[in-house]
Amino acid sequence: MSIPKTQKAVVFETNGGPLLYKDIPVPTPKSNEILINVKYSGVCHTDLHAWKGDWPLATKLPLVGGHEGAGVVVALGKDVKGWEIGDYAGVKWLNGSCLSCEYCQKSAESNCAEADLSGYTHDGSFQEYATADAIHAARIPKGTDLAEVSPILCAGITVYKALKTAGLEAGQWVAISGAAGGLGSLAVQYAKAMGYRVIAIDGGEEKGKFVKDLGAEYYVDFTKTKDVVKEIQTATNGGPHGVINVSVSEAAVNQSAQYVRPTGTVVLVGLPAGAKISAPIFDSVVKSINIRGSYVGNRADTAEAIDFFARGLIKCPIKIVGLSELQNIYELMEQGKILGRYVVDTSK
Amino acid sequence: MSIPKTQKAVVFETNGGPLLYKDIPVPTPKSNEILINVKYSGVCHTDLHAWKGDWPLATKLPLVGGHEGAGVVVALGKDVKGWEIGDYAGVKWLNGSCLSCEYCQKSAESNCAEADLSGYTHDGSFQEYATADAIHAARIPKGTDLAEVSPILCAGITVYKALKTAGLEAGQWVAISGAAGGLGSLAVQYAKAMGYRVIAIDGGEEKGKFVKDLGAEYYVDFTKTKDVVKEIQTATNGGPHGVINVSVSEAAVNQSAQYVRPTGTVVLVGLPAGAKISAPIFDSVVKSINIRGSYVGNRADTAEAIDFFARGLIKCPIKIVGLSELQNIYELMEQGKILGRYVVDTSK
Amino acid sequence: MSIPKTQKAVVFETNGGPLLYKDIPVPTPKSNEILINVKYSGVCHTDLHAWKGDWPLATKLPLVGGHEGAGVVVALGKDVKGWEIGDYAGVKWLNGSCLSCEYCQKSAESNCAEADLSGYTHDGSFQEYATADAIHAARIPKGTDLAEVSPILCAGITVYKALKTAGLEAGQWVAISGAAGGLGSLAVQYAKAMGYRVIAIDGGEEKGKFVKDLGAEYYVDFTKTKDVVKEIQTATNGGPHGVINVSVSEAAVNQSAQYVRPTGTVVLVGLPAGAKISAPIFDSVVKSINIRGSYVGNRADTAEAIDFFARGLIKCPIKIVGLSELQNIYELMEQGKILGRYVVDTSK
Amino acid sequence: MSIPKTQKAVVFETNGGPLLYKDIPVPTPKSNEILINVKYSGVCHTDLHAWKGDWPLATKLPLVGGHEGAGVVVALGKDVKGWEIGDYAGVKWLNGSCLSCEYCQKSAESNCAEADLSGYTHDGSFQEYATADAIHAARIPKGTDLAEVSPILCAGITVYKALKTAGLEAGQWVAISGAAGGLGSLAVQYAKAMGYRVIAIDGGEEKGKFVKDLGAEYYVDFTKTKDVVKEIQTATNGGPHGVINVSVSEAAVNQSAQYVRPTGTVVLVGLPAGAKISAPIFDSVVKSINIRGSYVGNRADTAEAIDFFARGLIKCPIKIVGLSELQNIYELMEQGKILGRYVVDTSK
Repeated sequence: MSIPKTQKAVVFETNGGPLLYKDIPVPTPKSNEILINVKYSGVCHTDLHAWKGDWPLATKLPLVGGHEGAGVVVALGKDVKGWEIGDYAGVKWLNGSCLSCEYCQKSAESNCAEADLSGYTHDGSFQEYATADAIHAARIPKGTDLAEVSPILCAGITVYKALKTAGLEAGQWVAISGAAGGLGSLAVQYAKAMGYRVIAIDGGEEKGKFVKDLGAEYYVDFTKTKDVVKEIQTATNGGPHGVINVSVSEAAVNQSAQYVRPTGTVVLVGLPAGAKISAPIFDSVVKSINIRGSYVGNRADTAEAIDFFARGLIKCPIKIVGLSELQNIYELMEQGKILGRYVVDTSK
Repeated sequence: MSIPKTQKAVVFETNGGPLLYKDIPVPTPKSNEILINVKYSGVCHTDLHAWKGDWPLATKLPLVGGHEGAGVVVALGKDVKGWEIGDYAGVKWLNGSCLSCEYCQKSAESNCAEADLSGYTHDGSFQEYATADAIHAARIPKGTDLAEVSPILCAGITVYKALKTAGLEAGQWVAISGAAGGLGSLAVQYAKAMGYRVIAIDGGEEKGKFVKDLGAEYYVDFTKTKDVVKEIQTATNGGPHGVINVSVSEAAVNQSAQYVRPTGTVVLVGLPAGAKISAPIFDSVVKSINIRGSYVGNRADTAEAIDFFARGLIKCPIKIVGLSELQNIYELMEQGKILGRYVVDTSK
Repeated sequence: MSIPKTQKAVVFETNGGPLLYKDIPVPTPKSNEILINVKYSGVCHTDLHAWKGDWPLATKLPLVGGHEGAGVVVALGKDVKGWEIGDYAGVKWLNGSCLSCEYCQKSAESNCAEADLSGYTHDGSFQEYATADAIHAARIPKGTDLAEVSPILCAGITVYKALKTAGLEAGQWVAISGAAGGLGSLAVQYAKAMGYRVIAIDGGEEKGKFVKDLGAEYYVDFTKTKDVVKEIQTATNGGPHGVINVSVSEAAVNQSAQYVRPTGTVVLVGLPAGAKISAPIFDSVVKSINIRGSYVGNRADTAEAIDFFARGLIKCPIKIVGLSELQNIYELMEQGKILGRYVVDTSK
Repeated sequence: MSIPKTQKAVVFETNGGPLLYKDIPVPTPKSNEILINVKYSGVCHTDLHAWKGDWPLATKLPLVGGHEGAGVVVALGKDVKGWEIGDYAGVKWLNGSCLSCEYCQKSAESNCAEADLSGYTHDGSFQEYATADAIHAARIPKGTDLAEVSPILCAGITVYKALKTAGLEAGQWVAISGAAGGLGSLAVQYAKAMGYRVIAIDGGEEKGKFVKDLGAEYYVDFTKTKDVVKEIQTATNGGPHGVINVSVSEAAVNQSAQYVRPTGTVVLVGLPAGAKISAPIFDSVVKSINIRGSYVGNRADTAEAIDFFARGLIKCPIKIVGLSELQNIYELMEQGKILGRYVVDTSK
């Protein structure tokens, strides 16, 4: 496989500055890295935050964004083991970590203080050729549809991790708040595949039909119900054992601490800028509830989330457009007009 | 042992009304209850809330308060098994529960919706003779000092449960916020006995000396430090793995969500009236922290907390006064003038 | 509902003695018991052991066996709460326990030293009217088919508990050794409902088809494979994460410690008389495997196992015969000729 | 710091062949390795097995043994991060692993199929200069006594891991079978530091005094007691919650499955050649016991075990001799004449 010297990429030089679709050099993998010919990359809200620079963590500049890249290994750094040219590989949010700190030692590498983040502190998947740490890069089984698997590499892993963080047993109720969105629709499917009973929360009839088709057993339409808390507690005979907050509404997050079942767990996943979780201490104590922040999954979560997809248990409805159109997607995203997940084809 | 017909008790007929030290009938145990000749009873902030009626849960009226009563079994209901006259027994906060709901089935009886609460929905330990459900009453080893053990029956169990809720491993750091108070001083000792490293937070030099004598390895004096968060994180090399919030300061509680170590656990225990826990969602997710409400312990926690005391690992400095002086203690409590734990002698 | 004075039952007066189908008095519930009009009762291998008396634990004599009885509540002891006449209730193996020991306190009531066992130390479900402790009796939703649910009350609960004991995550492999038998066929279905991947082990083509129809992903026919261990490890890419040993072959049990995945868990459930588990210490340490005994489920497991059944996720193929024919079933059982589960109709 | 070209080492060319104390080249660290000037190395039974080659896993040949080496970093491979010349570092059993398999991903790197073992498949610490994977090498705080810490690097980590594998809570009983030996005496101290109550089992009065001085609360002298099982169960009021089998007696291991408390855990650690654990299935199920193999600790266990030592909670009585005398130690070991731990000074 011949690797070109230059490639197409979308680059920005300042946060919020122009998104340039242009030729840049193909990067050379370091001794610990693989070079991946990215075929497709999902587009995530985090990419928008990276471009705008509105999170309390600085990005690399200039930056190639993207952290849901699925492709084929085309070169290996000289110390790389366990990969072969032609393997399918994924560029995910956590590009690399120190492997040595207490968090890396305990498989909590997402919490490593030296985490290297694709499309944030490391050029990401909005280019034809991207580098990834060989230890951290996602392994994708040969034969997998690279376009469809791409959103699993962040959205899928994230909701799968959140569900594990809820610490539920099969047969228990989990509420998905924001169930019809990109993360939510994956969460519904993973939850069902894990044996949980799903109560989905979102707004509008169409979304209700959508999430029920994905496996939700009950749908709460917050645009219609008089009392969200009461309806959820009644439907689940006392409240869901876990709640996955993929909605970015602060009010919805706070409400989840009310309707969760005693001894149950509220998981924070979505990142509304500047928002806070707030819950009455008295109720939190007497109901003995848990509120847990869940970040992206570790390498084991990644392998497992991809395995569920590869076994056909998760469907990810996507729209494929050319990488050159990335700016349009960001605009739609900012307007809140995205339904489902956009995936860019890096060859176009 | 002859049981009198009447006894001394402190009763109030309305929330906030007069605390009457007077003769009332000795209660008769139901078929599932034991009758305990209460020798001593600790006095807890909860007793003050019960009297004032300022929590979102109604009390029985008229009410005999108290839920830290230690005494001797003097009569058995007719279906009672496993108790004998002369056994030492304790009246604790959870007097009884349904034993059949999902919470009771899973040893989370404190979360039972039909929980019967001593000194709140069931006449408590501020009387010479009190009834207690035989299944729930605390078993106290013969030979135990009944005055000293009494505060263990609520304060001790509560902090022990909170420490278990933090889910720590021996050798990890736990912060006790409000370390020199009644709950805090017990928490420091239990934490040390459980193999944790204790960082104690409170105000003033005297309290610092006190908590270090109890086993704290590091003391943060919030009246002197420039930056509580930074000092705690530096002293613990990255933040404590767990935090026990026995302080009733809302600001202190919120601060604990900042200084806790990534992947660590903030435990809510103290119940400042009307307070909320509030934490930035972004930080909570990226640091993957846990916030957990911890209520009173279950029966197993009770047995374990008493066992630590009985083995001599926990000292509880108390001041003993007559039951007739209960009103004075309430007044000191409201003025925040209590140091250590008051225990009433029901015979005086 | 009028309760007769006498009823039909199958009684034996000595272990291994005649199984008499005859009239005996209807028992009177104690203050803590309910009286259940048993409609149907499953027949379990344990009933055979109880009759023969070949386990190291003495039975009550004379004895009415049976511990999978499903019926209707017809009378309440005077202290019973939470039950109403007409409720559906189940007589299960654990009829009662002390509720006070460390095991009862921690929801491990099956390990209570004073456990009272239906059809063993307490007259069981092979009669028209049986007593059961109100705290322990199983709650069955109205409308449930009482014949089909009866085997769930022991066989179902037992395999569900064993699967929980394996401590697996959704998506992991579990081997069911003895998959086509009464316990095994339920285990396959529960495992699938819990999100696990099932590899079923048994002998013969017919059984292979049977277990695949129930949800097994892979079938190992031990009558045909050259190397059971190798085939299982290959099919599961390194060995199953858990193994449920419902087979009563000692050799099969020992083999499971060989093929289990490193860090995986072998669960012991079936009780071959006099058998031992034996495993090389070197391999057990280097592979870091776990071997866990799993007894019957607790009350929470009971409720959950019934809930899976009630939601239609578990099918239990049964053959219904009259209670008067119980002796024939025992004979078939001893000859190893039972396929599926026999259920007796107590009215015949 | 100048690094010589040659150094002293003890080498053998065939299993069981001569142990040659001679000059060999100083190894060059690979890109991922550090070079450690080993000052002291503990001598472990495993070293004897490696020399004799009597375990079912082949050693590298010729081989420099040793896997408890404590020293100073003198050179860094070119990709090494997070280490500096002059740091204290330890050569431990697990020299390296693939970092990519499911076991490495889940912090179970000891179970990695490609594990590289010091003094077994990788030249170990019985030389003046040894190489170690930078990710896996143990970090030892500056100022630590390098002779005393050396046995912690295998013996200490191993018993600490075993105690964690037992899954106990502070206040519970743990039995140490073989308590006065090299592993056992460390296990007693770690157990005490973790808040457990220790019942020590060994033979003879002198050993009894020794383990009580280390913190054991009760001592069972198997040379004197009539009934080991009964004495242990009586002393612990029902059996210890956990058992650490560092004894290499097969009979003692099997006995531990009898005296362990119901729902308790028997941990296998010691590796008697060719031995099996054997337990009655009936009892194992009805008592719901767990039998768990525990191998060496992972990197987090390593850091924690060293931290307990560095905090002064663990004392390791050692005898220091020159590296040139290694053969004598092996002879004493084979004769069972070792008391405490031998440490070799590589400079002599």
